[in-house]
Amino acid sequence: MELLDKLNWRYAAKAMNGKAVPEEKVERILEAARLAPTSSGLQPFEIFVVKNQDIKEQIKPIAWNQRVITECSHLLVFAAWDTYTADRINYMFDLTNDIRGFKNEGWENYRQMLLNSYPQKDAEENFNHAAKQAYIAFSQAIAAAAFEGVDATPMEGFDPEAVDKILGLREKGLRSAVLLPLGYREEENDWLVNLVKVRKPMEDLVTVID
Amino acid sequence: MELLDKLNWRYAAKAMNGKAVPEEKVERILEAARLAPTSSGLQPFEIFVVKNQDIKEQIKPIAWNQRVITECSHLLVFAAWDTYTADRINYMFDLTNDIRGFKNEGWENYRQMLLNSYPQKDAEENFNHAAKQAYIAFSQAIAAAAFEGVDATPMEGFDPEAVDKILGLREKGLRSAVLLPLGYREEENDWLVNLVKVRKPMEDLVTVID
Repeated sequence: MELLDKLNWRYAAKAMNGKAVPEEKVERILEAARLAPTSSGLQPFEIFVVKNQDIKEQIKPIAWNQRVITECSHLLVFAAWDTYTADRINYMFDLTNDIRGFKNEGWENYRQMLLNSYPQKDAEENFNHAAKQAYIAFSQAIAAAAFEGVDATPMEGFDPEAVDKILGLREKGLRSAVLLPLGYREEENDWLVNLVKVRKPMEDLVTVID
Repeated sequence: MELLDKLNWRYAAKAMNGKAVPEEKVERILEAARLAPTSSGLQPFEIFVVKNQDIKEQIKPIAWNQRVITECSHLLVFAAWDTYTADRINYMFDLTNDIRGFKNEGWENYRQMLLNSYPQKDAEENFNHAAKQAYIAFSQAIAAAAFEGVDATPMEGFDPEAVDKILGLREKGLRSAVLLPLGYREEENDWLVNLVKVRKPMEDLVTVID
Protein backbone atom coordinates (compact mmCIF):
# COMPACT_ATOMS: atom_id res chain seq x y z
CA MET A 1 0.00 0.00 0.00
CA GLU A 2 1.42 3.35 -1.01
CA LEU A 3 0.45 4.95 2.31
CA LEU A 4 2.68 2.46 4.16
CA ASP A 5 5.63 3.34 1.89
CA LYS A 6 5.10 7.01 2.69
CA LEU A 7 4.75 6.39 6.43
CA ASN A 8 7.98 4.39 6.34
CA TRP A 9 9.72 7.19 4.42
CA ARG A 10 8.73 9.92 6.84
CA TYR A 11 10.44 10.69 10.15
CA ALA A 12 10.53 13.71 12.47
CA ALA A 13 13.27 15.80 10.86
CA LYS A 14 15.49 17.39 13.52
CA ALA A 15 17.24 19.83 11.17
CA MET A 16 15.89 21.56 8.07
CA ASN A 17 17.65 23.54 5.37
CA GLY A 18 15.39 26.58 5.07
CA LYS A 19 14.32 25.75 1.50
CA ALA A 20 10.81 26.92 0.70
CA VAL A 21 8.06 24.34 0.24
CA PRO A 22 6.03 25.24 -2.88
CA GLU A 23 2.65 26.73 -1.98
CA GLU A 24 0.72 24.13 -3.99
CA LYS A 25 2.22 21.40 -1.84
CA VAL A 26 1.26 23.25 1.35
CA GLU A 27 -2.25 23.68 -0.03
CA ARG A 28 -2.63 19.94 -0.58
CA ILE A 29 -1.28 19.22 2.91
CA LEU A 30 -3.86 21.63 4.35
CA GLU A 31 -6.57 20.07 2.20
CA ALA A 32 -5.82 16.67 3.77
CA ALA A 33 -6.25 18.29 7.20
CA ARG A 34 -9.51 19.91 6.04
CA LEU A 35 -10.88 16.56 4.83
CA ALA A 36 -10.12 14.77 8.12
CA PRO A 37 -13.18 13.39 9.90
CA THR A 38 -14.10 14.97 13.24
CA SER A 39 -16.67 14.31 15.93
CA SER A 40 -20.14 15.32 14.67
CA GLY A 41 -18.32 16.97 11.75
CA LEU A 42 -17.67 20.08 13.84
CA GLN A 43 -14.01 20.57 12.85
CA PRO A 44 -13.37 22.31 16.18
CA PHE A 45 -10.00 23.83 15.33
CA GLU A 46 -8.15 26.24 13.07
CA ILE A 47 -4.73 26.06 11.49
CA PHE A 48 -2.27 28.95 11.50
CA VAL A 49 0.41 28.84 8.82
CA VAL A 50 3.39 30.83 10.05
CA LYS A 51 5.67 31.89 7.20
CA ASN A 52 6.89 35.07 8.91
CA GLN A 53 10.47 34.53 10.07
CA ASP A 54 10.21 37.02 12.96
CA ILE A 55 7.27 35.12 14.41
CA LYS A 56 9.15 31.84 14.05
CA GLU A 57 12.09 33.44 15.90
CA GLN A 58 9.72 34.42 18.71
CA ILE A 59 8.34 30.89 18.94
CA LYS A 60 11.71 29.08 18.90
CA PRO A 61 12.79 29.93 22.50
CA ILE A 62 9.43 28.80 23.91
CA ALA A 63 9.75 25.55 21.92
CA TRP A 64 12.93 24.26 23.57
CA ASN A 65 14.98 26.12 20.95
CA GLN A 66 14.27 23.40 18.43
CA ARG A 67 16.06 24.51 15.29
CA VAL A 68 13.40 23.31 12.85
CA ILE A 69 11.08 26.06 14.14
CA THR A 70 13.17 28.65 12.32
CA GLU A 71 14.63 26.34 9.65
CA CYS A 72 11.26 25.18 8.40
CA SER A 73 9.45 26.73 5.47
CA HIS A 74 5.92 26.80 6.92
CA LEU A 75 5.15 26.30 10.61
CA LEU A 76 1.64 24.87 11.04
CA VAL A 77 0.01 25.62 14.38
CA PHE A 78 -3.08 23.51 15.10
CA ALA A 79 -5.26 25.51 17.49
CA ALA A 80 -8.36 23.93 19.01
CA TRP A 81 -11.52 25.69 20.14
CA ASP A 82 -11.23 26.72 23.79
CA THR A 83 -14.75 25.37 24.25
CA TYR A 84 -17.87 24.42 22.27
CA THR A 85 -20.40 27.26 22.00
CA ALA A 86 -23.90 27.38 20.51
CA ASP A 87 -22.63 29.70 17.75
CA ARG A 88 -19.88 27.32 16.77
CA ILE A 89 -22.21 24.32 16.70
CA ASN A 90 -24.86 26.23 14.75
CA TYR A 91 -22.29 27.39 12.20
CA MET A 92 -21.53 23.79 11.16
CA PHE A 93 -25.16 22.66 11.14
CA ASP A 94 -26.21 25.73 9.12
CA LEU A 95 -23.31 25.20 6.72
CA THR A 96 -24.37 21.57 6.29
CA ASN A 97 -27.97 22.57 5.54
CA ASP A 98 -26.72 25.21 3.08
CA ILE A 99 -24.42 22.83 1.23
CA ARG A 100 -26.86 19.92 1.15
CA GLY A 101 -29.78 22.20 0.30
CA PHE A 102 -32.28 20.81 2.77
CA LYS A 103 -33.20 20.61 6.44
CA ASN A 104 -33.83 17.24 7.99
CA GLU A 105 -35.60 16.45 11.25
CA GLY A 106 -33.11 13.85 12.42
CA TRP A 107 -30.22 16.21 11.76
CA GLU A 108 -31.99 19.10 13.55
CA ASN A 109 -32.67 16.85 16.54
CA TYR A 110 -29.00 15.98 16.60
CA ARG A 111 -28.14 19.72 16.53
CA GLN A 112 -30.38 20.25 19.58
CA MET A 113 -28.79 17.35 21.38
CA LEU A 114 -25.33 18.85 20.88
CA LEU A 115 -26.58 22.32 21.85
CA ASN A 116 -27.96 20.80 25.03
CA SER A 117 -24.73 19.08 25.97
CA TYR A 118 -21.42 20.62 24.81
CA PRO A 119 -21.94 24.30 25.81
CA GLN A 120 -22.91 23.23 29.35
CA LYS A 121 -19.74 21.21 29.85
CA ASP A 122 -16.52 22.36 31.47
CA ALA A 123 -14.39 24.38 29.02
CA GLU A 124 -11.28 22.31 29.78
CA GLU A 125 -13.11 19.08 28.96
CA ASN A 126 -14.39 20.63 25.74
CA PHE A 127 -10.93 21.87 24.79
CA ASN A 128 -9.47 18.40 25.37
CA HIS A 129 -12.14 16.93 23.13
CA ALA A 130 -11.56 19.56 20.45
CA ALA A 131 -7.79 19.02 20.63
CA LYS A 132 -8.28 15.32 19.88
CA GLN A 133 -10.17 16.24 16.72
CA ALA A 134 -7.29 18.56 15.80
CA TYR A 135 -4.95 15.58 16.17
CA ILE A 136 -6.93 13.64 13.56
CA ALA A 137 -6.34 16.47 11.09
CA PHE A 138 -2.72 16.87 12.24
CA SER A 139 -2.17 13.18 11.49
CA GLN A 140 -3.63 13.49 7.99
CA ALA A 141 -1.37 16.50 7.39
CA ILE A 142 1.66 14.42 8.43
CA ALA A 143 0.69 11.69 5.96
CA ALA A 144 -0.01 14.26 3.23
CA ALA A 145 3.39 15.88 3.73
CA ALA A 146 5.01 12.48 3.18
CA PHE A 147 3.06 12.10 -0.08
CA GLU A 148 4.47 15.47 -1.17
CA GLY A 149 8.04 14.49 -0.26
CA VAL A 150 7.97 17.22 2.36
CA ASP A 151 9.47 16.68 5.79
CA ALA A 152 7.26 17.39 8.79
CA THR A 153 8.21 17.33 12.46
CA PRO A 154 5.31 16.59 14.82
CA MET A 155 5.96 18.74 17.88
CA GLU A 156 4.36 18.94 21.31
CA GLY A 157 7.44 20.37 23.00
CA PHE A 158 6.43 24.01 23.34
CA ASP A 159 4.71 26.31 25.82
CA PRO A 160 1.12 26.51 24.56
CA GLU A 161 0.24 29.64 26.54
CA ALA A 162 3.25 31.49 25.14
CA VAL A 163 2.33 30.47 21.56
CA ASP A 164 -1.25 31.57 22.24
CA LYS A 165 0.07 34.99 23.24
CA ILE A 166 2.38 35.39 20.26
CA LEU A 167 -0.40 34.50 17.81
CA GLY A 168 -3.24 36.15 19.75
CA LEU A 169 -5.16 32.88 19.90
CA ARG A 170 -7.05 33.30 23.20
CA GLU A 171 -8.83 36.41 21.91
CA LYS A 172 -10.09 34.24 19.05
CA GLY A 173 -11.34 31.55 21.46
CA LEU A 174 -8.52 29.20 20.45
CA ARG A 175 -5.67 27.41 22.21
CA SER A 176 -2.61 25.97 20.50
CA ALA A 177 -2.59 22.17 20.59
CA VAL A 178 0.29 20.94 18.45
CA LEU A 179 2.87 22.20 15.92
CA LEU A 180 3.96 20.85 12.56
CA PRO A 181 6.97 22.50 10.93
CA LEU A 182 7.11 21.73 7.18
CA GLY A 183 10.34 21.89 5.21
CA TYR A 184 13.23 19.83 3.94
CA ARG A 185 15.65 17.80 6.04
CA GLU A 186 19.27 18.89 6.37
CA GLU A 187 20.93 15.49 6.65
CA GLU A 188 24.38 16.62 7.79
CA ASN A 189 22.94 18.27 10.93
CA ASP A 190 20.21 15.78 11.72
CA TRP A 191 21.11 13.20 14.39
CA LEU A 192 17.93 11.21 13.69
CA VAL A 193 17.97 10.91 9.91
CA ASN A 194 20.12 7.77 9.72
CA LEU A 195 18.75 5.98 12.77
CA VAL A 196 16.39 3.03 12.34
CA LYS A 197 12.70 3.78 12.87
CA VAL A 198 11.56 2.13 16.11
CA ARG A 199 8.03 0.91 16.70
CA LYS A 200 6.54 -1.64 19.09
CA PRO A 201 6.23 -5.06 17.49
CA MET A 202 2.69 -5.81 16.32
CA GLU A 203 2.18 -8.43 19.06
CA ASP A 204 2.74 -5.79 21.77
CA LEU A 205 0.34 -3.39 20.08
CA VAL A 206 -2.57 -5.53 18.90
CA THR A 207 -4.82 -8.09 20.59
CA VAL A 208 -7.30 -10.00 18.44
CA ILE A 209 -10.56 -11.06 20.09
CA ASP A 210 -11.82 -13.93 17.96
CA MET B 1 -2.33 13.54 -4.61
CA GLU B 2 -3.61 10.02 -4.13
CA LEU B 3 -4.21 10.54 -0.41
CA LEU B 4 -6.67 13.34 -1.18
CA ASP B 5 -8.59 11.07 -3.58
CA LYS B 6 -8.85 8.46 -0.85
CA LEU B 7 -9.91 11.00 1.79
CA ASN B 8 -12.58 12.25 -0.58
CA TRP B 9 -13.77 8.69 -1.23
CA ARG B 10 -14.12 7.79 2.44
CA TYR B 11 -17.05 8.68 4.67
CA ALA B 12 -18.40 7.37 7.98
CA ALA B 13 -20.52 4.42 6.80
CA LYS B 14 -23.76 4.24 8.79
CA ALA B 15 -24.73 0.74 7.62
CA MET B 16 -22.50 -2.19 6.73
CA ASN B 17 -23.30 -5.49 5.04
CA GLY B 18 -21.47 -7.93 7.31
CA LYS B 19 -19.02 -9.00 4.60
CA ALA B 20 -15.62 -10.00 5.95
CA VAL B 21 -12.64 -7.76 5.32
CA PRO B 22 -9.65 -9.92 4.24
CA GLU B 23 -7.08 -10.31 7.01
CA GLU B 24 -4.23 -8.97 4.87
CA LYS B 25 -6.12 -5.69 4.47
CA VAL B 26 -6.70 -5.45 8.22
CA GLU B 27 -3.01 -6.14 8.78
CA ARG B 28 -2.01 -3.24 6.52
CA ILE B 29 -4.51 -0.94 8.27
CA LEU B 30 -3.00 -1.91 11.63
CA GLU B 31 0.49 -1.42 10.23
CA ALA B 32 -0.42 2.18 9.33
CA ALA B 33 -1.53 2.69 12.94
CA ARG B 34 1.69 1.09 14.18
CA LEU B 35 3.81 3.43 12.04
CA ALA B 36 2.04 6.58 13.27
CA PRO B 37 4.32 9.03 15.08
CA THR B 38 3.68 9.58 18.79
CA SER B 39 5.05 11.86 21.48
CA SER B 40 8.60 10.75 22.40
CA GLY B 41 7.88 7.61 20.37
CA LEU B 42 6.11 6.02 23.34
CA GLN B 43 3.09 4.65 21.42
CA PRO B 44 1.01 4.88 24.60
CA PHE B 45 -1.92 2.75 23.46
CA GLU B 46 -3.01 -0.68 22.32
CA ILE B 47 -5.51 -1.77 19.69
CA PHE B 48 -8.10 -4.48 20.28
CA VAL B 49 -9.49 -6.10 17.15
CA VAL B 50 -12.92 -7.48 17.97
CA LYS B 51 -14.03 -10.15 15.49
CA ASN B 52 -16.17 -12.06 17.99
CA GLN B 53 -19.83 -11.43 17.19
CA ASP B 54 -21.02 -11.95 20.79
CA ILE B 55 -18.66 -9.24 22.03
CA LYS B 56 -19.87 -6.89 19.29
CA GLU B 57 -23.46 -7.61 20.38
CA GLN B 58 -22.50 -6.67 23.94
CA ILE B 59 -20.91 -3.41 22.79
CA LYS B 60 -23.76 -2.32 20.50
CA PRO B 61 -26.23 -1.23 23.24
CA ILE B 62 -23.59 0.84 25.00
CA ALA B 63 -22.72 2.50 21.67
CA TRP B 64 -26.10 4.08 21.02
CA ASN B 65 -27.19 0.89 19.22
CA GLN B 66 -25.25 1.94 16.15
CA ARG B 67 -25.80 -0.88 13.66
CA VAL B 68 -22.28 -0.85 12.24
CA ILE B 69 -20.99 -2.21 15.55
CA THR B 70 -22.49 -5.60 14.73
CA GLU B 71 -22.52 -5.24 10.93
CA CYS B 72 -18.81 -4.52 10.69
CA SER B 73 -16.20 -7.16 10.01
CA HIS B 74 -13.54 -6.04 12.51
CA LEU B 75 -14.22 -3.58 15.32
CA LEU B 76 -11.01 -1.75 16.26
CA VAL B 77 -10.90 -0.41 19.82
CA PHE B 78 -8.12 2.10 20.44
CA ALA B 79 -7.28 1.93 24.15
CA ALA B 80 -4.86 4.43 25.66
CA TRP B 81 -2.60 3.92 28.67
CA ASP B 82 -4.41 4.95 31.86
CA THR B 83 -1.21 6.76 32.85
CA TYR B 84 2.52 6.85 32.08
CA THR B 85 4.61 4.64 34.35
CA ALA B 86 8.36 4.16 34.64
CA ASP B 87 8.02 0.60 33.30
CA ARG B 88 6.15 1.75 30.23
CA ILE B 89 8.66 4.51 29.50
CA ASN B 90 11.62 2.18 30.07
CA TYR B 91 10.11 -0.44 27.75
CA MET B 92 10.25 1.94 24.77
CA PHE B 93 13.71 3.32 25.57
CA ASP B 94 15.10 -0.21 26.06
CA LEU B 95 13.44 -1.37 22.85
CA THR B 96 14.99 1.57 21.03
CA ASN B 97 18.45 0.76 22.38
CA ASP B 98 17.97 -2.91 21.44
CA ILE B 99 16.86 -2.16 17.89
CA ARG B 100 19.45 0.54 17.23
CA GLY B 101 22.17 -1.49 18.93
CA PHE B 102 23.67 1.28 21.03
CA LYS B 103 23.10 3.49 24.05
CA ASN B 104 23.48 7.21 23.70
CA GLU B 105 23.93 9.78 26.43
CA GLY B 106 21.50 12.31 24.96
CA TRP B 107 18.84 9.65 24.60
CA GLU B 108 19.43 8.37 28.16
CA ASN B 109 19.16 11.92 29.50
CA TYR B 110 15.87 12.26 27.65
CA ARG B 111 14.68 8.99 29.24
CA GLN B 112 15.50 10.40 32.69
CA MET B 113 13.66 13.62 31.89
CA LEU B 114 10.52 11.68 30.96
CA LEU B 115 10.88 9.41 34.03
CA ASN B 116 11.09 12.56 36.16
CA SER B 117 7.96 14.11 34.71
CA TYR B 118 5.22 11.81 33.35
CA PRO B 119 4.88 9.31 36.24
CA GLN B 120 4.52 12.20 38.73
CA LYS B 121 1.66 13.79 36.80
CA ASP B 122 -2.03 13.31 37.39
CA ALA B 123 -3.26 10.07 35.78
CA GLU B 124 -6.17 11.83 34.07
CA GLU B 125 -3.81 14.33 32.46
CA ASN B 126 -1.57 11.48 31.33
CA PHE B 127 -4.50 9.52 29.93
CA ASN B 128 -5.66 12.57 27.97
CA HIS B 129 -2.18 12.93 26.53
CA ALA B 130 -1.98 9.24 25.67
CA ALA B 131 -5.43 9.36 24.06
CA LYS B 132 -4.26 12.12 21.73
CA GLN B 133 -1.42 9.90 20.57
CA ALA B 134 -3.95 7.12 19.98
CA TYR B 135 -5.90 9.55 17.78
CA ILE B 136 -2.85 10.04 15.55
CA ALA B 137 -2.76 6.28 14.95
CA PHE B 138 -6.56 6.13 14.62
CA SER B 139 -6.35 8.77 11.90
CA GLN B 140 -3.67 6.84 9.98
CA ALA B 141 -5.86 3.72 10.24
CA ILE B 142 -8.79 5.66 8.75
CA ALA B 143 -6.62 6.76 5.82
CA ALA B 144 -5.22 3.25 5.39
CA ALA B 145 -8.72 1.74 5.30
CA ALA B 146 -9.59 4.13 2.47
CA PHE B 147 -6.50 2.96 0.56
CA GLU B 148 -7.75 -0.61 0.97
CA GLY B 149 -11.25 0.27 -0.25
CA VAL B 150 -12.53 -0.64 3.19
CA ASP B 151 -15.18 1.46 4.92
CA ALA B 152 -14.40 2.70 8.41
CA THR B 153 -16.69 4.58 10.79
CA PRO B 154 -14.87 6.79 13.30
CA MET B 155 -16.89 6.52 16.50
CA GLU B 156 -16.78 8.35 19.81
CA GLY B 157 -20.43 7.68 20.64
CA PHE B 158 -20.06 4.92 23.23
CA ASP B 159 -19.73 4.49 26.98
CA PRO B 160 -15.98 4.07 27.52
CA GLU B 161 -16.30 2.61 31.01
CA ALA B 162 -18.72 -0.05 29.76
CA VAL B 163 -16.38 -0.97 26.89
CA ASP B 164 -13.49 -1.13 29.36
CA LYS B 165 -15.50 -3.62 31.42
CA ILE B 166 -16.48 -5.80 28.48
CA LEU B 167 -12.90 -6.03 27.25
CA GLY B 168 -11.24 -6.06 30.69
CA LEU B 169 -9.17 -3.00 29.84
CA ARG B 170 -8.77 -1.39 33.26
CA GLU B 171 -7.02 -4.48 34.62
CA LYS B 172 -4.50 -4.01 31.81
CA GLY B 173 -3.97 -0.33 32.68
CA LEU B 174 -5.88 0.78 29.60
CA ARG B 175 -8.96 2.88 28.86
CA SER B 176 -10.93 2.82 25.62
CA ALA B 177 -10.53 6.07 23.68
CA VAL B 178 -12.20 5.65 20.29
CA LEU B 179 -13.71 2.94 18.04
CA LEU B 180 -13.24 2.17 14.37
CA PRO B 181 -15.56 -0.44 12.84
CA LEU B 182 -14.14 -1.78 9.56
CA GLY B 183 -16.36 -3.32 6.90
CA TYR B 184 -18.27 -2.61 3.73
CA ARG B 185 -21.05 -0.07 3.30
CA GLU B 186 -24.61 -1.24 2.72
CA GLU B 187 -25.82 1.57 0.48
CA GLU B 188 -29.57 0.82 0.61
CA ASN B 189 -29.67 1.26 4.39
CA ASP B 190 -27.19 4.10 4.75
CA TRP B 191 -28.74 7.57 5.06
CA LEU B 192 -25.34 9.22 4.70
CA VAL B 193 -23.87 7.48 1.68
CA ASN B 194 -25.40 9.77 -0.95
CA LEU B 195 -25.11 13.06 0.92
CA VAL B 196 -22.45 15.59 -0.04
CA LYS B 197 -19.37 15.68 2.20
CA VAL B 198 -19.39 18.91 4.21
CA ARG B 199 -16.24 20.65 5.38
CA LYS B 200 -15.52 24.23 6.42
CA PRO B 201 -14.21 26.30 3.53
CA MET B 202 -10.43 26.72 3.61
CA GLU B 203 -10.73 30.43 4.50
CA ASP B 204 -12.60 29.58 7.72
CA LEU B 205 -10.02 26.94 8.65
CA VAL B 206 -6.66 28.46 7.75
CA THR B 207 -4.96 31.77 8.57
CA VAL B 208 -1.65 32.53 6.89
CA ILE B 209 0.81 34.68 8.84
CA ASP B 210 3.14 36.11 6.21
